[in-house]
Amino acid sequence: MPDANPFLDPLRFGRRVSPCSLVIFGANGDLAKRKLLPALYRIHYEGRLPPSFAVIGNSRTEMTDAQFREKMRESVSRFLEDSPFEAGVWDSFAQNLFYVAGDLADPGFYARLAAKLEAVEVSHRTAGNVLFYLSTQPSYYAVAVHGLGVAGLHRGDGWRRLVVEKPFGHDLGSARELDRKIHDVFPEPEIYRIDHYLGKETVQNILAFRFGNGIFEPLWNRRYITYVQITAAESIGVEGRGAYYQEAGTLRDMIQNHLLQVMATVGMEPSNVFQADAVRDERAKFLRSIRALKPGEVDRYAVAGQYGPSRAGGAETPGFRQETGVDPEAQTDTFAAVTFFVDNWRWAGVPFYVRSGKRMPKRVTDVAIQFNSAPHSLFAGNGEDERLSARPNLLIMRIQPEEGISLRFMSKYPGSGMRLRPVSMDFSYGSSFGTRTPTAYETLLVDALSGDATLYTRQDMVEASWRAVQPILEVWENRRFDFPNYTAGTWGPKEADDMLARQGHFWRVP
Amino acid sequence: MPDANPFLDPLRFGRRVSPCSLVIFGANGDLAKRKLLPALYRIHYEGRLPPSFAVIGNSRTEMTDAQFREKMRESVSRFLEDSPFEAGVWDSFAQNLFYVAGDLADPGFYARLAAKLEAVEVSHRTAGNVLFYLSTQPSYYAVAVHGLGVAGLHRGDGWRRLVVEKPFGHDLGSARELDRKIHDVFPEPEIYRIDHYLGKETVQNILAFRFGNGIFEPLWNRRYITYVQITAAESIGVEGRGAYYQEAGTLRDMIQNHLLQVMATVGMEPSNVFQADAVRDERAKFLRSIRALKPGEVDRYAVAGQYGPSRAGGAETPGFRQETGVDPEAQTDTFAAVTFFVDNWRWAGVPFYVRSGKRMPKRVTDVAIQFNSAPHSLFAGNGEDERLSARPNLLIMRIQPEEGISLRFMSKYPGSGMRLRPVSMDFSYGSSFGTRTPTAYETLLVDALSGDATLYTRQDMVEASWRAVQPILEVWENRRFDFPNYTAGTWGPKEADDMLARQGHFWRVP
Repeated sequence: MPDANPFLDPLRFGRRVSPCSLVIFGANGDLAKRKLLPALYRIHYEGRLPPSFAVIGNSRTEMTDAQFREKMRESVSRFLEDSPFEAGVWDSFAQNLFYVAGDLADPGFYARLAAKLEAVEVSHRTAGNVLFYLSTQPSYYAVAVHGLGVAGLHRGDGWRRLVVEKPFGHDLGSARELDRKIHDVFPEPEIYRIDHYLGKETVQNILAFRFGNGIFEPLWNRRYITYVQITAAESIGVEGRGAYYQEAGTLRDMIQNHLLQVMATVGMEPSNVFQADAVRDERAKFLRSIRALKPGEVDRYAVAGQYGPSRAGGAETPGFRQETGVDPEAQTDTFAAVTFFVDNWRWAGVPFYVRSGKRMPKRVTDVAIQFNSAPHSLFAGNGEDERLSARPNLLIMRIQPEEGISLRFMSKYPGSGMRLRPVSMDFSYGSSFGTRTPTAYETLLVDALSGDATLYTRQDMVEASWRAVQPILEVWENRRFDFPNYTAGTWGPKEADDMLARQGHFWRVP
Repeated sequence: MPDANPFLDPLRFGRRVSPCSLVIFGANGDLAKRKLLPALYRIHYEGRLPPSFAVIGNSRTEMTDAQFREKMRESVSRFLEDSPFEAGVWDSFAQNLFYVAGDLADPGFYARLAAKLEAVEVSHRTAGNVLFYLSTQPSYYAVAVHGLGVAGLHRGDGWRRLVVEKPFGHDLGSARELDRKIHDVFPEPEIYRIDHYLGKETVQNILAFRFGNGIFEPLWNRRYITYVQITAAESIGVEGRGAYYQEAGTLRDMIQNHLLQVMATVGMEPSNVFQADAVRDERAKFLRSIRALKPGEVDRYAVAGQYGPSRAGGAETPGFRQETGVDPEAQTDTFAAVTFFVDNWRWAGVPFYVRSGKRMPKRVTDVAIQFNSAPHSLFAGNGEDERLSARPNLLIMRIQPEEGISLRFMSKYPGSGMRLRPVSMDFSYGSSFGTRTPTAYETLLVDALSGDATLYTRQDMVEASWRAVQPILEVWENRRFDFPNYTAGTWGPKEADDMLARQGHFWRVP
């Protein structure tokens, strides 16, 4: 590795990975190729992987170690994004890559996997530590865990951990069922349920912002905050994932997991220490405080949408029902907006407006905190329109892209007399630190490999999140929607605006 | 005037000047040439001066109206700073300029002035309204006011107002004496004591920031603020004003007036309405709450400094005692730093550190609010130095130059683990509005000509400010200082650092 490595940032050396093997189930899949292997390469590039480290990939496809390495080399060099691909670094990394083909339902596979694990334990001195990473189709999660249990691979000389990718269940019942099956084999402290939003720097920074500063937390409650808006908009459609997405929908795919975790990060109480269970206790407590809607309230507080075709700008964009693999009568929500209420001392009466959608005008994820107006309008009475001259403060935490924070406040307009106009203070995450921002998967992989579960979800968190959306799922399940109800390239159906208008509020245009 | 005039901003049209004459005493002086006439030209350029408007200049020098106009044309074109000089605009403005030579101690002068005022009242339909502007040497203030009184010019068909430039007295006693003499002729509501810092956009914006927003005022008190620092640093020395400055000193020349007014703007309670007496009542109340030091406390809470010569960078900079016109034994403070305490409910126990000096490393005026640290260090325990990872929030309001506001807060440093580092959010006044910022003198002239005294000081404010510094002046008067005690181009004497160090605080380097 060259000496002048910009990635060798001493501030990031605190956490090194201990000797271990990482077994990736579904190693030939999209997630492994696009996210996991590039993340591992970068962690290695930064010198944070020990020499005593091995990756064992698995899928049904027959491949030799050499073929697997070549395939991964192609993927990593293609999906590295903001980092350079260096052949020398790759070669030193690739020596640690191995492959075992096999069907997860075949008991014979686990014997071959056990043999490979024993071999690398000797050759790479991995000390018997193994992290199993479930990156397969969700229907194989329970199968793989069962297979590991039967083969006795969940126990050994070193530690054994399990990372489970989303989705964790399809509803509250199936999530509990999956938990039961996993717990038959792995104890809760060794289960790492991934929600990659928690690994995003900007989501982690919400906690730094709230609890690392003295001035924000005193304002962070019902006394000063009017409402919170969380938006996750994608400009793309389902992009070939139509068949999967048709069964999921936005409420399941984005809100139940990612956005409720973001909401918990915004709303949780401070923990005493920044350690896995202390932090997760607070997140779980917040998620349990979310009021579950009564069936009769669902139409008032939740809106489903599905995009129809658009011909804007001369280009034809298909509607969801015209996408490949999608049922022409599909009832899937490609947009969902929910008003959540949080029944606790801090947030009583403060609505959390959460929305997510595909085929929106732009790709953006952010959190907007709208504060109460000044209690008395000292500068009023000059005949000015208060919509211009007395707008409430707005704090925007941009999760992606253009990561940063901005605060809208009123300032004096230059000239005679006291006329106020809104202006912004801005902080840009990227340009403020002379260092690269790691991806969520780098952070989460290092954490799991180091045994830090702070940014992973726990069983009680997953259940509380499902409980918060379950009444909506059930009402929608039995509904025939008049879809499509929004045009591709717009901010969703009119009903989503109406939902806020009834509270005298409105959605921000990000 | 051209149609596409960038100065014709409808937001600034609210205030137009009513018909009147403006009499400038000391019209051949620096202030008139550098500030007043350029300001009037710009107000005219913006179309805010009525056609029925006249300026009558006075000084002892004999000049015709035409000579005066030519002299003012030179000054205005030279000192306009950020505005274009347009000959056509000047010509239309210059038609309103007149001149009456005369000695202010000569009763005959006032008769000539009365005749000129009558003439322009007819020719320019000024409706008998007159604003007298005292821009002479301070020793002439009382003389001029007395002369106006004897000649009966303080009364007439329209309104009569008096603007008094600083310094308003040399200490508490002389300020009261001057007030008595002015009140013999003008009633308090017609007296406009100018403190041009109050006219600065950025100082006015402190009120907009505090009272136009809902989120700052809840934090603006002893519970959240550790201390306030107000700095007014000049990089230049006395620049030929040595003889005047020798008698004044920094405490009188900067702190008693400008910086105490800035401090009152930062610390005052909100008024109910934004009107002259309501706002000035609050400013006065704040200034009266400043604790007057006991003589025995002065050395603990006030530091005098005087710069000595410097040879930094090969260039020789003279010390104050080597400046032209300065006594080689001068006891003058070219630097002063004071710790003020404010005895009221909001500020009890919060020190206001105020400093000003000449020959500092840079020209800068700003207010820094240091907030309390987060009450509990959630992210501590990772072995990091808390001076880096747990710095308190700092709000900086930049009065000049680079007008704006920035807020320092802690953010997550990118990478594994939760490491915090200070970053800033920034608002730049100049670049946020697509319009020119008027100078303090433009704002204040329009205000006085329109009868709005909100940004002018009142007798009780002036007295309260003198009372706040009087004990320091008296102790220093009887002291022989070991001057010089700081080198030109540094941030003042060591004693100023010691003063804060005793409280566990330190001066910011702006």
